[in-house]
Amino acid sequence: MSRRPIGVFDSGVGGLTVLKELIRRLPNERYVYFGDMARAPYGTKSKATVTRYSKQIVRFLLSRNIKAIVVACNTASAMALDAIEGEFDLPVIGVVKPGAKTAADTTKTGHIGLIGTEATITSGIYESYLQGYRPDISLVGKACPLFVSLVEEGCIEDPVTTEIAKRYISAFRDTDIDTLIMGCTHFPMIEDTIQRVAGEHVHLVNPAYETARSTQELLQEKDLLNTEDIPVHEEAYKFYVSDAPDRFRRVANIFLPLSINGAKQISIEEY
Amino acid sequence: MSRRPIGVFDSGVGGLTVLKELIRRLPNERYVYFGDMARAPYGTKSKATVTRYSKQIVRFLLSRNIKAIVVACNTASAMALDAIEGEFDLPVIGVVKPGAKTAADTTKTGHIGLIGTEATITSGIYESYLQGYRPDISLVGKACPLFVSLVEEGCIEDPVTTEIAKRYISAFRDTDIDTLIMGCTHFPMIEDTIQRVAGEHVHLVNPAYETARSTQELLQEKDLLNTEDIPVHEEAYKFYVSDAPDRFRRVANIFLPLSINGAKQISIEEY
Repeated sequence: MSRRPIGVFDSGVGGLTVLKELIRRLPNERYVYFGDMARAPYGTKSKATVTRYSKQIVRFLLSRNIKAIVVACNTASAMALDAIEGEFDLPVIGVVKPGAKTAADTTKTGHIGLIGTEATITSGIYESYLQGYRPDISLVGKACPLFVSLVEEGCIEDPVTTEIAKRYISAFRDTDIDTLIMGCTHFPMIEDTIQRVAGEHVHLVNPAYETARSTQELLQEKDLLNTEDIPVHEEAYKFYVSDAPDRFRRVANIFLPLSINGAKQISIEEY
Repeated sequence: MSRRPIGVFDSGVGGLTVLKELIRRLPNERYVYFGDMARAPYGTKSKATVTRYSKQIVRFLLSRNIKAIVVACNTASAMALDAIEGEFDLPVIGVVKPGAKTAADTTKTGHIGLIGTEATITSGIYESYLQGYRPDISLVGKACPLFVSLVEEGCIEDPVTTEIAKRYISAFRDTDIDTLIMGCTHFPMIEDTIQRVAGEHVHLVNPAYETARSTQELLQEKDLLNTEDIPVHEEAYKFYVSDAPDRFRRVANIFLPLSINGAKQISIEEY
């Protein structure tokens, strides 16, 4: 059982920032990554739709014999985690809870900012976790939809990205937040810009770090960590997508210093 | 038969710029509009995926008893029009052919520029129509993916949109294009910016105008124009979407000066 891969999924390429942290922390694991490129992005879609899509993906990943699921997408974690946990019997880790925990542990003023997709912000899920940890915490959220397109266009260090960041971050001007959650997996790619615009006094939280740690803890607790070496010739990372893989390969290279030539297309609607 | 509605579809809201022209030219027609919000955008997706999605939508629209189809999406017109015409027996009008015809009739230098989604540009479809009209024409294409997000965020008259436009339009700097096709239904929303950046000597082609004219001609030819008045109390425009309608209603208001409170959600995957 412990030799089985960890399933990781996202609406597209963003979850690769989470996969990167998982590989860094758990290098001895096998991974199956699914990117739902045919229906991306999720961040503008409704809860019912994101939940339906997420369940199809979990069913596909189960067919790949996984031992645990990492929902490497803030929108899917915000909207579909309960539904996944309710329907499937395996360890499930989302990115929202670990991110909220770190933010709650970090803030001194008790005022936290959150940037993410429209769907994540309006879901209210970060608030409810944060309130659970510390009822005195207040959260200000700001949807930043253009960040996703800018990152996917490779506008990483770019005056346009800086200008858009200034507009978005101005939402926090009259607050005294000292902690800002990057509640979308694309955003760590422009962390330097966000940090510069938000100011050095603001601590940026990247939920991917904490998600990798939570995954390690959960696997340890369930005695599911892989202890055997992975044979050198074996492909430890497998990539699947719901659309033709060429765009995935291309955009993925912005995110991950890994060759993913072997990405395969599957018909996700059949699951 | 002629009293039946015209089916119009797009990956989301962009096709509303085409619907607007249709209504202007054919005010006495009924319309059923479908926006595939659950799977939008199409412009980054593969031909096979866009074709599968388009066929499902045509099957849905046929269930609404339409007399003709307007594919109000450049990407779907570029990638799926042949497949739709091959499979379904009703008049089908795409936006690419009328746009190409106008451009071919307009250019004096024989050099035409094309801006659109990645999928439309790489499809090569505009080239092949243009070559059919005038073999001496040369086309330079440039994918402008950020325009779609900027328009949907309401950045219509905006320095960021101008800056991005300058980058994209610089692709035509060393050409002597005198005609530029706005090969994506979102782009007419920022026509003023594109015109300013491209220069007054460049004639902008909005395929929506010509598509409405082609639709009129085709319906006339097939004796399908509606000649009876539409009763005042009747809803002549019906809107359907594949996701929860609230975002569609909200973004649609950027595009269309029409109230579309009645938009209904349907399960497009079942068609």
